[in-house]
Amino acid sequence: MKRHKIAELLKTDKPVGSILIKGWVRTKRNAKTFSFIEVNDGSCLKNMQIVVDGKTSNYHEIKKLTTGSAVAVRGKMVPSQGGGQQWEVQATNIDIISMAPETFPLQKKRHTDEYLRTIAHLRPRTNKYGSIFRIRSELAYAVHHFFRERGFRYIHTPVITGSDCEGAGELFRLTTLNPPIPMTPDGKIDYSKDFFGMESNLTVSGQLSAEMFALALGDVYTFGPTFRAENSNTSRHVAEFWMIEPEMAFCDLAGNMNMGETLIKHLISFTMDNCAEDLALFARFVDKTLMNTLENIVDSEFVRIPYQAAIDILLKSKQPFSFPVAHGADLQSEHERYLTEKHFKKPVIIYDYPKTIKPFYMRLNDDGQTVGAMDIIVPRIGELVGGSQREERLDVLEQQMASSDLSPENYWWYLESRRFGTVPHSGFGLGFERLLMLVTGVSNIRDVIPFPRTPGNIEF
Amino acid sequence: MKRHKIAELLKTDKPVGSILIKGWVRTKRNAKTFSFIEVNDGSCLKNMQIVVDGKTSNYHEIKKLTTGSAVAVRGKMVPSQGGGQQWEVQATNIDIISMAPETFPLQKKRHTDEYLRTIAHLRPRTNKYGSIFRIRSELAYAVHHFFRERGFRYIHTPVITGSDCEGAGELFRLTTLNPPIPMTPDGKIDYSKDFFGMESNLTVSGQLSAEMFALALGDVYTFGPTFRAENSNTSRHVAEFWMIEPEMAFCDLAGNMNMGETLIKHLISFTMDNCAEDLALFARFVDKTLMNTLENIVDSEFVRIPYQAAIDILLKSKQPFSFPVAHGADLQSEHERYLTEKHFKKPVIIYDYPKTIKPFYMRLNDDGQTVGAMDIIVPRIGELVGGSQREERLDVLEQQMASSDLSPENYWWYLESRRFGTVPHSGFGLGFERLLMLVTGVSNIRDVIPFPRTPGNIEF
Repeated sequence: MKRHKIAELLKTDKPVGSILIKGWVRTKRNAKTFSFIEVNDGSCLKNMQIVVDGKTSNYHEIKKLTTGSAVAVRGKMVPSQGGGQQWEVQATNIDIISMAPETFPLQKKRHTDEYLRTIAHLRPRTNKYGSIFRIRSELAYAVHHFFRERGFRYIHTPVITGSDCEGAGELFRLTTLNPPIPMTPDGKIDYSKDFFGMESNLTVSGQLSAEMFALALGDVYTFGPTFRAENSNTSRHVAEFWMIEPEMAFCDLAGNMNMGETLIKHLISFTMDNCAEDLALFARFVDKTLMNTLENIVDSEFVRIPYQAAIDILLKSKQPFSFPVAHGADLQSEHERYLTEKHFKKPVIIYDYPKTIKPFYMRLNDDGQTVGAMDIIVPRIGELVGGSQREERLDVLEQQMASSDLSPENYWWYLESRRFGTVPHSGFGLGFERLLMLVTGVSNIRDVIPFPRTPGNIEF
Repeated sequence: MKRHKIAELLKTDKPVGSILIKGWVRTKRNAKTFSFIEVNDGSCLKNMQIVVDGKTSNYHEIKKLTTGSAVAVRGKMVPSQGGGQQWEVQATNIDIISMAPETFPLQKKRHTDEYLRTIAHLRPRTNKYGSIFRIRSELAYAVHHFFRERGFRYIHTPVITGSDCEGAGELFRLTTLNPPIPMTPDGKIDYSKDFFGMESNLTVSGQLSAEMFALALGDVYTFGPTFRAENSNTSRHVAEFWMIEPEMAFCDLAGNMNMGETLIKHLISFTMDNCAEDLALFARFVDKTLMNTLENIVDSEFVRIPYQAAIDILLKSKQPFSFPVAHGADLQSEHERYLTEKHFKKPVIIYDYPKTIKPFYMRLNDDGQTVGAMDIIVPRIGELVGGSQREERLDVLEQQMASSDLSPENYWWYLESRRFGTVPHSGFGLGFERLLMLVTGVSNIRDVIPFPRTPGNIEF
């Protein structure tokens, strides 16, 4: 007999005569002549309530079932007599697949997120983390569906790279060299002896590679893991995270902003439409204002203001910021949040940043001072999207690289894309975990990724 | 005016009065009083033929257009007068976005795959590679769609890991340590000073992590990059490749085989249905037998035989294999291909391999000698899928780990999944690039991945 998933059973609108459920015991309550067992199979947040008659042959075993044990239940699904659920299963037979010991860490009580991080292999068995990872899965699907509908191609840009897209320098190096490590005469590691024959790193962005494909296939996107070896222990930083990076040929900065706004609204709407049950858990237990926040984003027209105007607002605000506000300085998270949460009370797209605080590949504006960058900032998160129109003019790009001390030899292929059939193009990066934090109200990035990697933490 | 993509225009069944196309010149032919320009925008294999009248204001510029140049074309789409295409565009205006120099490497001639690998940033602008990467994108979408329809959750298992799933040892190490590299007294690198405080590597498989989620959410899968630091320069090896890994709770070996067979057939059918034009290019120029091969796989019931029987067939075959055939020895690619191409002439699932040639996590059969492994081998590729039922019995798993010299302390969380609510479960890995080679007939793995990573090669 084929196994029924609880999510499917709960969608039906009439009793089912013969069912087979396999899952894990969440709770059990023994009455005089029967027991109630709540079984969860991970297919949805809701449990199925199982009613077992005391006359069942192995009832003496069933009575001892512990939280976390695995069972296979046969019976029929009928309207529930009690409140709290529409359906329940009258069991004819319960096979005990495995009995969990009383030491099973997830007993029926509230656990802290900090504790659950120490058992990240078990936490998806809780209501909260089950919901997070179902939403994560749905949102990932929504990303692919959104782009495919619009004729974008998904490109698997490499994780291992010899170039440093952001010029940020916080890179994980890769090696297969064993001690004694070969050194050059000037005391550096001799990478010519390493696997790739040169220094190699984990990518911080697929953008430069994706640009090559945008200039061939038109609209493309990447969606994959990216890495930062930042020694930060904050609720916003992990060393490995997923990023969505569309890159569009023949697209200018305004088109880029439109795409960012459309994507964010679509992904939130999709979650509200497809993950209502899981989302309700967060609206109830994690952030009471969640649904308002999400509806407000979907219904708002995003504000669009130049960086200069954003700085002026911050300067006039007289807020006691920890970091100084000044023309020419980068915006900090507290500044971004003031603008989106207090001042505008909706998402804001800030564009035309000073070139001095942005990477080399952003398109220089006619003023010679600013670049066609755009960041989308949203309540509770701050920067969700960072993007730009790319510099498509070979001579300007070469100058920008020179000012950033980047060696043209390392980027010969990138420069060639401006030599052969160069066109205006734009793109952005959207941090997938930040999106998940926005959508669920969860405040620590470690809690929206299956096995978070942070300094000193690589367990599991 | 909104830009029209050529793929969309070519799907219409009537003329379009006013269009705007942006793309790149593939070829140009000047007649006496007009020119034909073939423009490709990457949205599909086909070009749009543009007819430009000699009276067009900037015709003296247009006449000089080179292959690879970028243009924006306004005009109307009308039935084509000439043969070879249904529609053409009568241009009213052509803006030259950029003129490619005569040194543009992709002139109208056949280039070798070897040469095109040296310009991997430009090769997606050719017909063949454009088609490969459109198919790759569609197939990736098909993977997500397939699993979501069946209630699977997509899990982003970590790329950075402290454990070695296969015990294979061909790992890329990660580090942020700079010279002088801190060493322990016994001459090893002191990883306690490194970013994660211990040795860390790039993952070879997401399986162990995915198992933790299967035991919580039921059916899950991963689809992401995996890594092998194998010093092999063959047409079948790259250091970074993508793998699809479903993991199913309450699923035995037979269910695992069914899922593998269903998935392969679905992905091939999906490509035939959704990438007919791109696929036809490969059937015409790369492998004349391609469509037969694919149809045969979709229509076949896969053969299922135990390893023992497979060895017997090979021993009786009297083929001059380079590697010896023997009971207890692993199957080589030549053996697999003989079975699927010559003997059975269709896909074959080989199961119940000797435990000595398979990893520790595979479920020990009652004979104590074989494990519930299953490999799916297909014509031209050999092994496409490798999977198993997982050992869910704690005591047996501990014995297997001991025989493999794995330290239980490193796998405490994996062992805990067998302590708390353990259930039978199964899964497999399907190499995404091998699938692409199967579907396109392309014989070198470097040619189905955007920027291949191989020993000594990390360009782009």
